[in-house]
Amino acid sequence: MCGVFGIKPHPEAANLAYLGLYALQHRGQESAGIACLGPDRIRVVRRMGLVADAFSEESLQQISGSAAIGHVRYSTSGGSMLENAQPILITCHHGQITLAHNGNLVNAQRIRQELESKGSIFASNSDSEVILHLIARSQKTKIEDAIVEALQQVEGAFSCVFLTKDKLIGVRDPHGFRPLLMGSLGEAKLFASESCAFDLIDAQIQREVDPGEMVIVNKLGMSRSVHPFPKKVARQCIFEHIYFGRPDGTMFGESTHEFRERLGEKLALESAVHADLVIPVPDSGVCAALGYARASGIPFAFGLIRNHYVGRTFIEPKQSIRHFGVKIKLNPVRELIYGKRVVLIDDSLVRGTTSRKIVKMVRAAGAAEVHLRISAPPTTHPCYYGIDTPTRRELIASSHSVEEIRKYIEADSLAYITQEGMMSCLKKSKPEDYCHACFSGDYAIPFPGSTEV
Amino acid sequence: MCGVFGIKPHPEAANLAYLGLYALQHRGQESAGIACLGPDRIRVVRRMGLVADAFSEESLQQISGSAAIGHVRYSTSGGSMLENAQPILITCHHGQITLAHNGNLVNAQRIRQELESKGSIFASNSDSEVILHLIARSQKTKIEDAIVEALQQVEGAFSCVFLTKDKLIGVRDPHGFRPLLMGSLGEAKLFASESCAFDLIDAQIQREVDPGEMVIVNKLGMSRSVHPFPKKVARQCIFEHIYFGRPDGTMFGESTHEFRERLGEKLALESAVHADLVIPVPDSGVCAALGYARASGIPFAFGLIRNHYVGRTFIEPKQSIRHFGVKIKLNPVRELIYGKRVVLIDDSLVRGTTSRKIVKMVRAAGAAEVHLRISAPPTTHPCYYGIDTPTRRELIASSHSVEEIRKYIEADSLAYITQEGMMSCLKKSKPEDYCHACFSGDYAIPFPGSTEV
Amino acid sequence: MCGVFGIKPHPEAANLAYLGLYALQHRGQESAGIACLGPDRIRVVRRMGLVADAFSEESLQQISGSAAIGHVRYSTSGGSMLENAQPILITCHHGQITLAHNGNLVNAQRIRQELESKGSIFASNSDSEVILHLIARSQKTKIEDAIVEALQQVEGAFSCVFLTKDKLIGVRDPHGFRPLLMGSLGEAKLFASESCAFDLIDAQIQREVDPGEMVIVNKLGMSRSVHPFPKKVARQCIFEHIYFGRPDGTMFGESTHEFRERLGEKLALESAVHADLVIPVPDSGVCAALGYARASGIPFAFGLIRNHYVGRTFIEPKQSIRHFGVKIKLNPVRELIYGKRVVLIDDSLVRGTTSRKIVKMVRAAGAAEVHLRISAPPTTHPCYYGIDTPTRRELIASSHSVEEIRKYIEADSLAYITQEGMMSCLKKSKPEDYCHACFSGDYAIPFPGSTEV
Amino acid sequence: MCGVFGIKPHPEAANLAYLGLYALQHRGQESAGIACLGPDRIRVVRRMGLVADAFSEESLQQISGSAAIGHVRYSTSGGSMLENAQPILITCHHGQITLAHNGNLVNAQRIRQELESKGSIFASNSDSEVILHLIARSQKTKIEDAIVEALQQVEGAFSCVFLTKDKLIGVRDPHGFRPLLMGSLGEAKLFASESCAFDLIDAQIQREVDPGEMVIVNKLGMSRSVHPFPKKVARQCIFEHIYFGRPDGTMFGESTHEFRERLGEKLALESAVHADLVIPVPDSGVCAALGYARASGIPFAFGLIRNHYVGRTFIEPKQSIRHFGVKIKLNPVRELIYGKRVVLIDDSLVRGTTSRKIVKMVRAAGAAEVHLRISAPPTTHPCYYGIDTPTRRELIASSHSVEEIRKYIEADSLAYITQEGMMSCLKKSKPEDYCHACFSGDYAIPFPGSTEV
Repeated sequence: MCGVFGIKPHPEAANLAYLGLYALQHRGQESAGIACLGPDRIRVVRRMGLVADAFSEESLQQISGSAAIGHVRYSTSGGSMLENAQPILITCHHGQITLAHNGNLVNAQRIRQELESKGSIFASNSDSEVILHLIARSQKTKIEDAIVEALQQVEGAFSCVFLTKDKLIGVRDPHGFRPLLMGSLGEAKLFASESCAFDLIDAQIQREVDPGEMVIVNKLGMSRSVHPFPKKVARQCIFEHIYFGRPDGTMFGESTHEFRERLGEKLALESAVHADLVIPVPDSGVCAALGYARASGIPFAFGLIRNHYVGRTFIEPKQSIRHFGVKIKLNPVRELIYGKRVVLIDDSLVRGTTSRKIVKMVRAAGAAEVHLRISAPPTTHPCYYGIDTPTRRELIASSHSVEEIRKYIEADSLAYITQEGMMSCLKKSKPEDYCHACFSGDYAIPFPGSTEV
Repeated sequence: MCGVFGIKPHPEAANLAYLGLYALQHRGQESAGIACLGPDRIRVVRRMGLVADAFSEESLQQISGSAAIGHVRYSTSGGSMLENAQPILITCHHGQITLAHNGNLVNAQRIRQELESKGSIFASNSDSEVILHLIARSQKTKIEDAIVEALQQVEGAFSCVFLTKDKLIGVRDPHGFRPLLMGSLGEAKLFASESCAFDLIDAQIQREVDPGEMVIVNKLGMSRSVHPFPKKVARQCIFEHIYFGRPDGTMFGESTHEFRERLGEKLALESAVHADLVIPVPDSGVCAALGYARASGIPFAFGLIRNHYVGRTFIEPKQSIRHFGVKIKLNPVRELIYGKRVVLIDDSLVRGTTSRKIVKMVRAAGAAEVHLRISAPPTTHPCYYGIDTPTRRELIASSHSVEEIRKYIEADSLAYITQEGMMSCLKKSKPEDYCHACFSGDYAIPFPGSTEV
Repeated sequence: MCGVFGIKPHPEAANLAYLGLYALQHRGQESAGIACLGPDRIRVVRRMGLVADAFSEESLQQISGSAAIGHVRYSTSGGSMLENAQPILITCHHGQITLAHNGNLVNAQRIRQELESKGSIFASNSDSEVILHLIARSQKTKIEDAIVEALQQVEGAFSCVFLTKDKLIGVRDPHGFRPLLMGSLGEAKLFASESCAFDLIDAQIQREVDPGEMVIVNKLGMSRSVHPFPKKVARQCIFEHIYFGRPDGTMFGESTHEFRERLGEKLALESAVHADLVIPVPDSGVCAALGYARASGIPFAFGLIRNHYVGRTFIEPKQSIRHFGVKIKLNPVRELIYGKRVVLIDDSLVRGTTSRKIVKMVRAAGAAEVHLRISAPPTTHPCYYGIDTPTRRELIASSHSVEEIRKYIEADSLAYITQEGMMSCLKKSKPEDYCHACFSGDYAIPFPGSTEV
Repeated sequence: MCGVFGIKPHPEAANLAYLGLYALQHRGQESAGIACLGPDRIRVVRRMGLVADAFSEESLQQISGSAAIGHVRYSTSGGSMLENAQPILITCHHGQITLAHNGNLVNAQRIRQELESKGSIFASNSDSEVILHLIARSQKTKIEDAIVEALQQVEGAFSCVFLTKDKLIGVRDPHGFRPLLMGSLGEAKLFASESCAFDLIDAQIQREVDPGEMVIVNKLGMSRSVHPFPKKVARQCIFEHIYFGRPDGTMFGESTHEFRERLGEKLALESAVHADLVIPVPDSGVCAALGYARASGIPFAFGLIRNHYVGRTFIEPKQSIRHFGVKIKLNPVRELIYGKRVVLIDDSLVRGTTSRKIVKMVRAAGAAEVHLRISAPPTTHPCYYGIDTPTRRELIASSHSVEEIRKYIEADSLAYITQEGMMSCLKKSKPEDYCHACFSGDYAIPFPGSTEV
């Protein structure tokens, strides 16, 4: 998963890109980068780590200019290395081009081999670099035509922003797997993966870029829209609603917060249980837990406290501490839990290892019964379109029944929301416009040679 | 405010101190330090910043040994400099002594001047260093006697852990302003400011160190207790319950989480209002908001979303962004709030500037009415015993009526819990054992020359 | 100017490359890099700055393997940036190839434009990267054939070492502008720019790589030689003897130290003067000054002391200090110089600014007369083959007579060695095998569009 | 050995101290520090490493002010740690005092124990800190009286500069072991260990501070001199002339360069040998080698070339390389040496290990005979007054005859200058005013309990 941002023209473009990435931080914590068009050329700063650590006032000052794009990355393709951080900046016969890409291409490997056999030299092993090489090889005169020619050759998910000397371009693949919003701030036009990036900097949300649409912003901030790709069915990612999107936003027309509360309500109806307390796994399960509590009438309580200072480079003790990996993030409120029948609400159960630790920890704090409810269907298939799911082998639901999983995590009961139940919670968008391959295996674009990944 | 930790004997003493400080991080984010007794001598690592950033595996390895103390600091006395970070380590004619101190001394300045006039050289301007100079000047033979002689000369709040070549010592001032707990882990004895430090490392809570008690742990982990100070009335800090303590813990005999929920319930009874939603200011107002919602029957909702990646060194934009300082931390859920009458719950209102920004932001998100309820009485007096409150002049409640404050923050209504209401929420401890000087001005120990600070 | 090194196969290849570069440090202080073939792949470490600062034990450990090449750089083409540091490592359809290049190509810019128009993306603006792109585009099967095909398209100076998964290749352009030596150490074969790199690691000097020769070393350290380029006249750089080469070495068959002493002797015969002391400008003028003193009978003295700790990032004072730029490096020995007629010996006079400061400083120390003698002819033309001379406009001798220069530097007399005199000092190599374009303007390969640069 | 510098008043005091230390770098490469009096208080920057690395433009800017002292250190007492770097800055009842000390105290350990037993806390284990504790304990009103009271209690070598809010004070112990010069620059007064510090910044040398003299500089730059100590015989360090002092300076009235040339001449007369070349070990043996060549008539040659880029943190290869430790610094000029009878000249032979390696290296380069001549007498006794000599056990001359040493270093002959010969080279100062304990064992002040150290 990644987050992208773009703005043009604005005298504080680099600073606003920084703020936009700050708001999009939940979409990628591995690396962060900003490319900005200065008076003479485009400069880029990219670092491993969080936005707040990646940039200094000095580094933003050095790249300051009138248009910028930014990127936060959680690795989906290519390893975890600075070379794979984005935006990627190249110089070619079209001049300087820089790209920030959210999504994953399914035919990148094949194209790369072809290009290398013709003499291309790749600087990273990110699939996104393939797009830039295709642009560099295009003989089209106008940069937007070269970009279109390149994107017509790739397959998969791409919500991209490009910045060149003259233009800022936002484009979304014909299926529209990943979100991309347009906004405005004074005379500037903006792109961002989610609305929170606009909220923070007081920009106005204009609309979503349509699946298959390309929007070109010129020097004055005026935009024009083209639809250069063959029309395809929309396949927007349902997992963005369940898991990735910030709850304070609206995506694909739906309020994320409300959708998640409805998931909890639906789950309470589908899988009721006699219990004393509804406890969310913070923070991911909070919205659904409020819905579950409301629909079931069981009191809601914060029975698990999250440590807000959890860093990514934690030093583990040598001696064994029970449930350590989970304890460093969560601590149970013993006074609340002791002797109670507890319904735990979470938004996903991928490998099962974390859920198993949480159930044990809640039981060790004195819970009489522990019932786990998941506000998503079982994750049975990997995502090829940009979400970093494990391989199918590691997805516990791909090879185990719900009862087998319940035994493994040692819960008194376990239930997932049904796929129909989940889809029924969509109120303002249509179920057929969504990709739910991770739950259903119904892939819009096949991944080459992937009967098993 | 600060957090302290101590352990002896344990082969992973430095690593466990690291974990203990990690759990106590909320008590101080300015600096962190660990002193550990290695085979030859005590070594100390101190750094500005968070625990996760302050220590590396390598630095913990370099100081590894069999006994350790640790400290997290939020500056209360002395400026924000590495020299003032703790533990402080000195070598004197008693050998090596290292100290981690939570609390604030009221006569440190006077003693320091006396010592300097006799030729003492101070390395920091922390009040804690005064204790070590008094120990260095003591002619007592046994280190615990020298420590007692030193502590008998200082006045104010101190919950301290000392580590020497042979002993680990925990001690709490006669009023017991700040908390200090004892625990055990196998054969090791431990001290910590709060129980979450024990929870994380699977240590057992034994009991609180009593006000005026000193506990001495020897090489084998055996402890003995002495009461070397004249008996005084207990004055435990009520603000620890309201604000500082982690909600998953028990302090001074009370469950912090339950106390805060009762504050919310009491507040609902004292200051009812017709409204559509109860919304906490996350995370500080969450417990009280749940209590308020339960007692009032008004639905609870997460209408403000907190950005979990907020760093301390944020780069501000030059251009004006409305409510920027608050927005970087909080974002309203417009879909929830729009058109609603909202009760906002927070646990404190100190200067009023932040509350003012939050009220404006909620109103800008479309709230029909905004009623602010504070689960503490008005903060009218500064703390001299270790909590970093602003000077009296900056405390808005010291010079303004509730109505004046309401006008300033532009809320439709404003109410604080009463002092009696607050005290009535204590269920397992006695009101007369508490210090509430910040609300009442009733100081147990006068601060020299402080009719106004 | 640059220095290159290569070794294969040797279990300490990276460490020996480090030592080799250490010995070649005088050939480039801007950046340093080592590429080493590990068990799986080639890794590279490149840093701005000196060899001793650029590598740590840890970084050498991380790239350790069985074959390595290294490079020290003083920028000649492309700016001073890390991207331009070498070795350059690429992955292409031939696999991994890494290159260290000494010299300068005269047609790199034209080839680059052609390649970019066909879709190549360049990562640096170093002329050396052109060679790698040409290799990547070659459809030859064997890597040495692809390298030959690439090098046949470039013109100018190149003494290169290449390292691939299987081979270490050393190659020198047909004119042989820059030096390249072969050596051996046990079963390993080595390449280096100068013999001091072999001396330091106890390697044996075998011979020079011939102009136009390519030597290919296989996995076992066995080498074979090919001559793939059309035969051309040798044009070895005379300036290497005068200025760049370390005095303890032999290059192009000549002992550098002896050649420089002979230059001093010849200069004494050509431009005698009545004086009391011969003083070298340290360290560059020392050899010639010894020769001058011997031939003239005038006593030699160290009248200028060099500060050995001069760093590259010196902080200059705001206030004016006379001759500051020179003083930080050199200080006169007043007791020696006072009242004396001094012959100063240096090996070059390029812009004249430094000589002017030194003459003034010596005079300020009390010299009765200051006569400057230069052990090279006037530098009238820029070098296009790898030495970083200023543009012609900045070469004072390109537009001023010796008398005009003498007036500018305020010496009592000034003389250069004649070009014939210089050539007569060659004892073991032939004058016609040398390039002396910087003194004569006689360029072997024209630089495109350079009637004036 | 250390170097000290002081200046007051001057608007660029910190920058000039930086330059002064730069010139004094040869007196200490372990750490460097500057303390400067800013508008409000004295600030200090201290770092491990060389002057050019220790300070940045930013760090000098941060401490800028009107008076400064500086220090470069090569550890003589106390270990190699940042805590022991100087200037040391303390705050005591006299206000801020900062000290830069060259020399070594012989009774520091005893005084420290006394002070600790009375309650003093030491921050370093440098002997210099004792002086500051004695000042802090002095009840004298005027700071210069407190300094005198402190210095009257210590024994040993001290050439010190002190800086306080109001005064800059330079003082030299009654024996005058270490040098200290006074100078002026406009209205500013300066102190420095050697004249090269004044040369670099265009300051005028005024005179040496006398043994036992204290010079006090006030805010206006006016100085007054006092002689507060009992008169003692002068014992200036002869080793400064032989080894430490820069050759471009004058110390204790002697020209260092001329003294060293005379040592070489005398050595040639005392220990003649039939040989073909006189070769100095660079750079230390150069002056004496010129004198030796002149007096003996044997030609002088630079047969050993020094690598000017030798860093302090060199990474050693695992495999054995012959004479590696020496080779990284020196390389023989084979063409010069081959087949010749060589006289090597060096200025000291302490442990013998380096000389042994050099002799072997010269022989391996083909020398027919190698004769080593040392321009100092045998070093038989350790220095207690500030030069970092090894313990007596490690001084090869303390327990071996010249013939035994010759065999160990494998030279064809070995000779030292005689003590009488050395003393006869003093032309402008009196032999009886010198300390030569390292050669003679004649200590002016006994070191407590040091029959053997």
